[in-house]
Amino acid sequence: MRGETVKYFRKNIERMEGYVPGIQPKEKGWLKLNTNESPFPPSPHVIEAVFQAINGSLALYPDLAADELRKKAARVYRVKPSMVLVGNGSDEVLSIIARSFLEKGKKALILHPTYSLFETIVDIQGARLIRQKLNADFSLPRELFSKKADCAFVANPNPQAGTLFSRKQMERLAKTIGGMLVIDEAYVDFAPWNCLSMVREYGNVIVTRTLSKSYSLAGMRIGFAVAQEALIDGMMKVKDSYNVNRLSQVAAVAALDDREYFRNRVKETMRQRKFLGRSLKMLGFKVMPSGSNFLLAKPPNGVTAGQLYQELLERKVLIRFFDTKELRQYVRITVGNHEQNDELLKTIKLALIRFDVDYPETPFGVVKF
Amino acid sequence: MRGETVKYFRKNIERMEGYVPGIQPKEKGWLKLNTNESPFPPSPHVIEAVFQAINGSLALYPDLAADELRKKAARVYRVKPSMVLVGNGSDEVLSIIARSFLEKGKKALILHPTYSLFETIVDIQGARLIRQKLNADFSLPRELFSKKADCAFVANPNPQAGTLFSRKQMERLAKTIGGMLVIDEAYVDFAPWNCLSMVREYGNVIVTRTLSKSYSLAGMRIGFAVAQEALIDGMMKVKDSYNVNRLSQVAAVAALDDREYFRNRVKETMRQRKFLGRSLKMLGFKVMPSGSNFLLAKPPNGVTAGQLYQELLERKVLIRFFDTKELRQYVRITVGNHEQNDELLKTIKLALIRFDVDYPETPFGVVKF
Repeated sequence: MRGETVKYFRKNIERMEGYVPGIQPKEKGWLKLNTNESPFPPSPHVIEAVFQAINGSLALYPDLAADELRKKAARVYRVKPSMVLVGNGSDEVLSIIARSFLEKGKKALILHPTYSLFETIVDIQGARLIRQKLNADFSLPRELFSKKADCAFVANPNPQAGTLFSRKQMERLAKTIGGMLVIDEAYVDFAPWNCLSMVREYGNVIVTRTLSKSYSLAGMRIGFAVAQEALIDGMMKVKDSYNVNRLSQVAAVAALDDREYFRNRVKETMRQRKFLGRSLKMLGFKVMPSGSNFLLAKPPNGVTAGQLYQELLERKVLIRFFDTKELRQYVRITVGNHEQNDELLKTIKLALIRFDVDYPETPFGVVKF
Repeated sequence: MRGETVKYFRKNIERMEGYVPGIQPKEKGWLKLNTNESPFPPSPHVIEAVFQAINGSLALYPDLAADELRKKAARVYRVKPSMVLVGNGSDEVLSIIARSFLEKGKKALILHPTYSLFETIVDIQGARLIRQKLNADFSLPRELFSKKADCAFVANPNPQAGTLFSRKQMERLAKTIGGMLVIDEAYVDFAPWNCLSMVREYGNVIVTRTLSKSYSLAGMRIGFAVAQEALIDGMMKVKDSYNVNRLSQVAAVAALDDREYFRNRVKETMRQRKFLGRSLKMLGFKVMPSGSNFLLAKPPNGVTAGQLYQELLERKVLIRFFDTKELRQYVRITVGNHEQNDELLKTIKLALIRFDVDYPETPFGVVKF
């Protein structure tokens, strides 16, 4: 920051870098596999519901607590409506949590690497940040369970590899951490298990969910916190009164309602994840196990992750590259639909040729173009 | 709060009451004049634009900084796009400001009475609150200009009376306060002047605006901060990346675009404010001068404001009653459209009869039923 005016900012805001999200290109023609959005449109019932609501009362404030949506989410998540808080995306939910439990003098624990927003919201609160380095294979190290914090943020599955930690590990952490445990389950619909029901047993656990990934609604900003009533009540005081607009509330109710559409799209994403993972392995990539809708993959010898990222970028294919010690060997790729994955693989193959990387001929028709 | 879990909250969150907004009834059949929404629907171009956007890419994240909207707002407000931050309603903008400039150990100044959210966001930050009592006629007292604060929040026009402070007073405060001056101009489109251009000259002034009132878009949550670039840059680090959803961005651009619709609805609201004010005076009310889309009015002798509020509530007419020392003599009424104001006046007349309050016969046809 520059100029005279910066002197008014809180010191930690002045020092902060700010969260850097993936590129959102404005022109068409990009194959966009960099920010873990769904390759499918939302359910047709969502479109219909929003369409019906447009002529309604956009001039009136939305429902304060998004009560209809709360009830619907509560039914899907099998909890009471009073155990659900609705946010403007789970990013807002996470920020509300940070504002509720963290301040200067408090300690926040996050894994490393993980969703980088966690660090940003801890910084904004001016709390002390404790980074727990993951093992080289992105699993949880033993030391984690001897650490204490006022609030720990764990994404499960955890970016950037998509690693799914066990329920047993999460329960152990809830018992050892000594403060709040926030389990960000943004990607959990693509995983074989989740920790949602822990909120019933643990008064220090908040599980967050989003409709941005598995429900194809990133553009509408809907997230949830699920926790015991007393926690939700307290966080309600921190959230802006009218934080979720009318059309998003309507869209979210319709999305949660269409169970069949949801299940089919999640199943297809998991099928595509398997296809993409196998195809990348056949091209010589090392692919990390993922319980999410993205894959972390190490390119074959002869091309670095940074080079591959650049090469794809020039061909208008967007994937993610994190230039940090732990991640710069890898690229992170959002699982697309069948055509997108095919196009991606085709582009990767061209890039590998450009770098003179040998890859085995496809033994069966998985990588086709 | 109750139970074991509350111990995890920050102390000031635990102590806080939380902001109490006006009632938002869910059933139909209410005459709703309690939360200062526009009685008019948004421009037909807004409906059309949202309609066009529904089939677009709801599965993709919205534009991070809402750049097209920023540019549009910048043109309307005659500043550079880099001087505009877009928020999820001006409530979020105000919260971003509080998080940027306030923390434990800092001082925040607010007027009393004013928009009660100011107190809530100062409390959340744990900053020290200095309340500057207004004069009995809701004007600014001389002492204000000798007060110092890290951040002062002034709504102009100021709820709950709708008092419009002069530009000269705001300039004086910007010079004397010693920290940031936030001028919340949520209602200023209904007033004869505004302070927006102060941001050019003063590096410590932020002006906030909203599309909730004069643009009939309360349901879509769109607000702005306008300030010098270095201030906007810093606040950008605090805001959630994807804080404004796709459809709200589209709606807002279309709303700002239709200047004629905007001007006509604002003009009509001001005409109705004059009509409603005169009619209330004829019924024996004392009506405070207002530069906004609401009126603060003291009922005639024989009925208290609380009684009138209750009586109207039973007849499904919602106005606002604040049971505080400074305000309990008054009711606050949102200016409706012609039919709404007519119905309101009719209901008030019935209420006055019920309380045996004499009122003069209407000398000309303004109060008709």
